[in-house]
Amino acid sequence: MNQGPACPPAYLALAHTMADAAAQVIRPHFRQPIAIDAKADASPVTIADRDAEAAMRRMIEREFPDHGIRGEELGACRTDAEWVWVLDPIDGTKSFVSGSLAFGTQIALLHHGEPVLGIINQPITGERWVGAAGVATLGGKPIRTSERTALDQAILYTSALEQFDRPRHDRFSALAASVRFTRLSHDCYAAGLLALGGIDLLVESDVFDYDILPQMPIVQAAGGLVTDWQGQPLRNARNYATVLMAANAELHRAALQILCRD
Amino acid sequence: MNQGPACPPAYLALAHTMADAAAQVIRPHFRQPIAIDAKADASPVTIADRDAEAAMRRMIEREFPDHGIRGEELGACRTDAEWVWVLDPIDGTKSFVSGSLAFGTQIALLHHGEPVLGIINQPITGERWVGAAGVATLGGKPIRTSERTALDQAILYTSALEQFDRPRHDRFSALAASVRFTRLSHDCYAAGLLALGGIDLLVESDVFDYDILPQMPIVQAAGGLVTDWQGQPLRNARNYATVLMAANAELHRAALQILCRD
Repeated sequence: MNQGPACPPAYLALAHTMADAAAQVIRPHFRQPIAIDAKADASPVTIADRDAEAAMRRMIEREFPDHGIRGEELGACRTDAEWVWVLDPIDGTKSFVSGSLAFGTQIALLHHGEPVLGIINQPITGERWVGAAGVATLGGKPIRTSERTALDQAILYTSALEQFDRPRHDRFSALAASVRFTRLSHDCYAAGLLALGGIDLLVESDVFDYDILPQMPIVQAAGGLVTDWQGQPLRNARNYATVLMAANAELHRAALQILCRD
Repeated sequence: MNQGPACPPAYLALAHTMADAAAQVIRPHFRQPIAIDAKADASPVTIADRDAEAAMRRMIEREFPDHGIRGEELGACRTDAEWVWVLDPIDGTKSFVSGSLAFGTQIALLHHGEPVLGIINQPITGERWVGAAGVATLGGKPIRTSERTALDQAILYTSALEQFDRPRHDRFSALAASVRFTRLSHDCYAAGLLALGGIDLLVESDVFDYDILPQMPIVQAAGGLVTDWQGQPLRNARNYATVLMAANAELHRAALQILCRD
């Protein structure tokens, strides 16, 4: 499924080490008192987010100083480089500060803007999803998306209802009314569940590159489809107005019929 | 906090063994293909739910055949007995079939209708919350609810928005608009998060005894309050129209002011 070039083994090795380093920073803060700051967009951030991203950035700077970096918390540099790392140290900070396990560290590597490597790492359970060179794994074992194709049997996840503007909320609600059931508040963990075949559809709106790009190589290599709500591929951008991930082509088509309707 | 009598050690020991047995039944089904049946109320159930409850019931029948049992999946017997076990083999079946960890096995023991023992056990991670004799523990270590008292700093969880009728949905929304943030879809796991101090408020509506009673001894022994939306204690019943759990008296009072408003 992966259309990009193979991911050089040295870069994949670095990504694993970065995920380990981020986990080491995050773990001591889990279920411990921590100050929750509000960012400009009112989303929460903690010292664990910032320190985990800083640790990963230091490793990239040391190993591959010509690579670009774009991180959720600490900004961007050299984003016109051939290779660019996209980092979300804690995707699901609300879960993290709640003590829930529904969060993870996300790492993507872009080659000429195309994601060729994606990692979702859960620092507490040690669950690690990797997508690279067309292969998706969880804990080193290959995973596949679900083969359910009937929309009324499908399991739908989304991070939060607040992300949808009114027209998108209406279309999301129509989709939710057509599936078996809908669950929320799992952020990147839901993409992991889609890749391993637990859920069938994941719908988001108004998300950033660091939210989505690390999930694409995993979901696509596991057999899933990732597009916007018009069925178009996600172009290299910082923001994505709409995202649809589906376990297979049948569900993708069925969900699009509802989501792209006016 | 626990007003009931101490829980006899033999009953506590049995409860631990029952949680172990349920976990042993559930684990092999996790993230494996499983048939999802719809119950009369359209909520999902699987063979893992039924077999886990059957395993626990067999242990009670063998050890204490005069005790009553009320289980989510397999019905009730001897519910007028002095001691009655309340069982929810998988609370959060939607999470379970999705591959999420936000589910657990719930066990309560009632003495003359009063919950004196509560267990929430996560079969995959091995996290086990226990409330008995006024002490709440997670993994054997004492836990306490949060000391945050400002409503606008509080973290609110609820299982699902669909559970609220229109007037309750409005009141819940007013509460959600007054807190730091709201998250969903964690079922019993959210009660565990409340007891360990990760979250501050948990609001439910239209729930059953097996959903709520196992959580009460844990949350109360950890320092939390459990009432309905009028601030009244939950009476021994099969259904509860409204439930409010709060980390402390200040947040309980602040949440009630919003929830019990017409």
